[in-house]
Amino acid sequence: MTKTAGELAKYLGGTLQGDAGALLAGIASPANAAETDLIYLDSSRHRERVEKSRARCVLAHAGERFAGKTVVEIANPKLSFAKAGAWLLTPDALRGGTTRPTAVHPTAIVPPSAKLSADVSIGPYAVLEEEAEIGAGTQIGAFCFMGRGARVGENCRLHPRVTLYPGAQLGNRVEIHSGVVIGADGFGYVYGEGRQWKFPQIGTVRIGDDVEIGANTTIDRGSLESTDIGHGVKIDNLVQIAHNVRIGDHTVVAAQTGVSGSSILGRGVIVGGQVGIADHCTLEDGAIAGAQAGIPTGKTIRSGQTVWGTPARPLQKFKKQYAWLARLPELAERVRRLEADSEHG
Amino acid sequence: MTKTAGELAKYLGGTLQGDAGALLAGIASPANAAETDLIYLDSSRHRERVEKSRARCVLAHAGERFAGKTVVEIANPKLSFAKAGAWLLTPDALRGGTTRPTAVHPTAIVPPSAKLSADVSIGPYAVLEEEAEIGAGTQIGAFCFMGRGARVGENCRLHPRVTLYPGAQLGNRVEIHSGVVIGADGFGYVYGEGRQWKFPQIGTVRIGDDVEIGANTTIDRGSLESTDIGHGVKIDNLVQIAHNVRIGDHTVVAAQTGVSGSSILGRGVIVGGQVGIADHCTLEDGAIAGAQAGIPTGKTIRSGQTVWGTPARPLQKFKKQYAWLARLPELAERVRRLEADSEHG
Amino acid sequence: MTKTAGELAKYLGGTLQGDAGALLAGIASPANAAETDLIYLDSSRHRERVEKSRARCVLAHAGERFAGKTVVEIANPKLSFAKAGAWLLTPDALRGGTTRPTAVHPTAIVPPSAKLSADVSIGPYAVLEEEAEIGAGTQIGAFCFMGRGARVGENCRLHPRVTLYPGAQLGNRVEIHSGVVIGADGFGYVYGEGRQWKFPQIGTVRIGDDVEIGANTTIDRGSLESTDIGHGVKIDNLVQIAHNVRIGDHTVVAAQTGVSGSSILGRGVIVGGQVGIADHCTLEDGAIAGAQAGIPTGKTIRSGQTVWGTPARPLQKFKKQYAWLARLPELAERVRRLEADSEHG
Repeated sequence: MTKTAGELAKYLGGTLQGDAGALLAGIASPANAAETDLIYLDSSRHRERVEKSRARCVLAHAGERFAGKTVVEIANPKLSFAKAGAWLLTPDALRGGTTRPTAVHPTAIVPPSAKLSADVSIGPYAVLEEEAEIGAGTQIGAFCFMGRGARVGENCRLHPRVTLYPGAQLGNRVEIHSGVVIGADGFGYVYGEGRQWKFPQIGTVRIGDDVEIGANTTIDRGSLESTDIGHGVKIDNLVQIAHNVRIGDHTVVAAQTGVSGSSILGRGVIVGGQVGIADHCTLEDGAIAGAQAGIPTGKTIRSGQTVWGTPARPLQKFKKQYAWLARLPELAERVRRLEADSEHG
Repeated sequence: MTKTAGELAKYLGGTLQGDAGALLAGIASPANAAETDLIYLDSSRHRERVEKSRARCVLAHAGERFAGKTVVEIANPKLSFAKAGAWLLTPDALRGGTTRPTAVHPTAIVPPSAKLSADVSIGPYAVLEEEAEIGAGTQIGAFCFMGRGARVGENCRLHPRVTLYPGAQLGNRVEIHSGVVIGADGFGYVYGEGRQWKFPQIGTVRIGDDVEIGANTTIDRGSLESTDIGHGVKIDNLVQIAHNVRIGDHTVVAAQTGVSGSSILGRGVIVGGQVGIADHCTLEDGAIAGAQAGIPTGKTIRSGQTVWGTPARPLQKFKKQYAWLARLPELAERVRRLEADSEHG
Repeated sequence: MTKTAGELAKYLGGTLQGDAGALLAGIASPANAAETDLIYLDSSRHRERVEKSRARCVLAHAGERFAGKTVVEIANPKLSFAKAGAWLLTPDALRGGTTRPTAVHPTAIVPPSAKLSADVSIGPYAVLEEEAEIGAGTQIGAFCFMGRGARVGENCRLHPRVTLYPGAQLGNRVEIHSGVVIGADGFGYVYGEGRQWKFPQIGTVRIGDDVEIGANTTIDRGSLESTDIGHGVKIDNLVQIAHNVRIGDHTVVAAQTGVSGSSILGRGVIVGGQVGIADHCTLEDGAIAGAQAGIPTGKTIRSGQTVWGTPARPLQKFKKQYAWLARLPELAERVRRLEADSEHG
């Protein structure tokens, strides 16, 4: 699988400075790199790390030179490094070297009504219920549970210990980390006659292609319709997505954020960590919610707008308010002096 | 299992307008409904959805009429829809159609000292330790773990992959979603001699009847006594309940909220999402904590009071403060002008 | 295993007042104690509980006396009670009485290349991948997953259902609670050409000795290097530790806190619950972040400093600001009056 610096430059559309035949076998940080590992330099602040590295090939901005190293000049070294990783390494190597189990482990429970495409691997002690479906090239990890009629597309990877409730539907090339629960009942009750009555939670979850979902995240099924996650969406660890939420393509949600029932996130939305989005909110395409922001019930964040704080406000307003919040004791003292002057005046 | 609109009207105590013999086989949203699905209308804003629906029977407020549809008039259509769901459908159908495993799966590990009542089902690869007890009609999902002496009452449902530490006790009709951990050690250390000493965590967890607990939620055992969850309590996903907490009947806790050690929540308390309740707090009966509120150590929230913000304050005060926070830059400018006037005056 | 009050006084370096031969078989709260259980009194507010207790031996400050009870006088009764618990009870008894499985359960999957030291126990349905290593005296619970080359040191305890991704490394005497995921891919993407490209997540996680990690917590692998958790670190439930984070010895992190990529926590840092630490922050040795604090990207908290609020500020400043925030409506009214005076003046 070894490739060369010349092949890399061609693949990325970069300019080679140095030895086109320099061998590339992997990627690494400058400190950890072996001679055949590719490294990258994004900022001249870190030049020294690159100089000291054993790596013989560097992705860097045009004009960067390092004694004894081949440089592939490129406009965006970090992006190109990510692409180079996917080009140089197998998906398994990129994912930390897990060995891929072959075929269906004898301890996996697969009912006759389940539909398995070609080249599926299922780990030990995985359990499929009736009519579960798995697309070609997909790997299901140990202890995964697929409820009745759950469907996973092609070339997906479910790490060990993922739960798909009945009927959950995943697209292609979806990666789900350990501990994720998809399709549990939404949190819906109607209070009456002195107790909480459970509102029916009989909808489902539909997840698009190229989605990644972090460890221990939970995505609830819809109550009567569905919870929908678009293509290319990336969700971090310990995130909560409630029933009937819709998330548009390529939206990114950082760790420990919660999205409440029926809220809608558009395309390319960026949500920081520990954000709370109440129910029936709309974040239009490209909106950004800063870490720990709190967006109240029914609120709309306009396309391209950045909000911060609780309750969330446009970033510039938030910054001014908080600057004044920091100066409140001073402002109060100034008011006290004005009052004293006024009394004496 | 098919029932009629007339039977439904009688069951709910509503008034039938139309065809008493209209058949009812399920429930649905207006958009998804088949002819024999029941739908409901809560607000006249959504009249058009009902008109376009294929459903032939609608729960609605008195006076609502729809061409070609039978109406069951009722005071609270949403509550009645929830009740109708429980009346029309089996618990399994309401829970998304999971097939119920019959009896004890041959791969489940059940020691001779475990006590299983009649009509218990245990899924594949579930593990029970010595003296675990399961009440009649209860379903234990795949990969569930019941530690030594853990007890689950009657007609409960543990979804796949629930952990009960030794000695945890659950009442009747309790539903626990996938990934929940009940009875892990509380987080208690005493610092001394340059290190943290673990304070003993040897208490237990007791959970009442009719409780529902959301996916990946954690409820710790008491340190020396117990953590107590009352009857009818509903807890959402990714919630943390610390050691020695007590939660009263019919209290509701939304997603990602944390309740710290020894805090007490009364009956009918409502806690929003991402709320942080520090240790030794008391929320009296019927108190309400808004989303993302932070309640400091030892604080008491009085019965029926609604609080918001961090540190939490009564809602009306919070609103005023935040309105003025938004106007702080303006207020500061007014103070600057007063100072300028004062100097020139 | 029964010991005496005299032996306890000697072990702790306390002063015995009463019967040196009083038997001690366990520890308990005053209300739950049997005669042979040790109890403690930390504050004279709780004297009555001790007086009413059946326990015959009490750890208390010098000078405390109770009719019919033996007192072991000690400077820090709570710390001494924690130490006494570890001295009186076996680790299993301290951990709620779980029976320890003997040897390797026949359903555990252990490949020939795995290395198991003496006295290892592995629970039912645990799965080890190639070259996993387990040190002497370590217990691996049911449904645990150890990826290829993952290593666990001596006398560790993994409760049921812990996932170690390939290559994760744990020290000695580490306790990991149910549902924890160690070594999942970090959340790193580079946006370009209309989509998110995954940045390689090929580093690992290294965890020191005497660490405890709470239920459903997630600790991601490093992207190119490693995520490092020091010795004696205690992490509560549902905490998120991102890629490349480094945490120093004896640091404590409370529930639902999130630490973003590449942040550094020093030694003896204390982080409250639901704190959000953005990326590339530094909390120097002994820094304290109060519950729900939000620490912005790149921020340094100095050694010994206590911060609170979002964005986090030194505690004293935070308190003043929030006191004035509460008085903002009043301050605004005073400004209004000054303006009125000024116009009329």
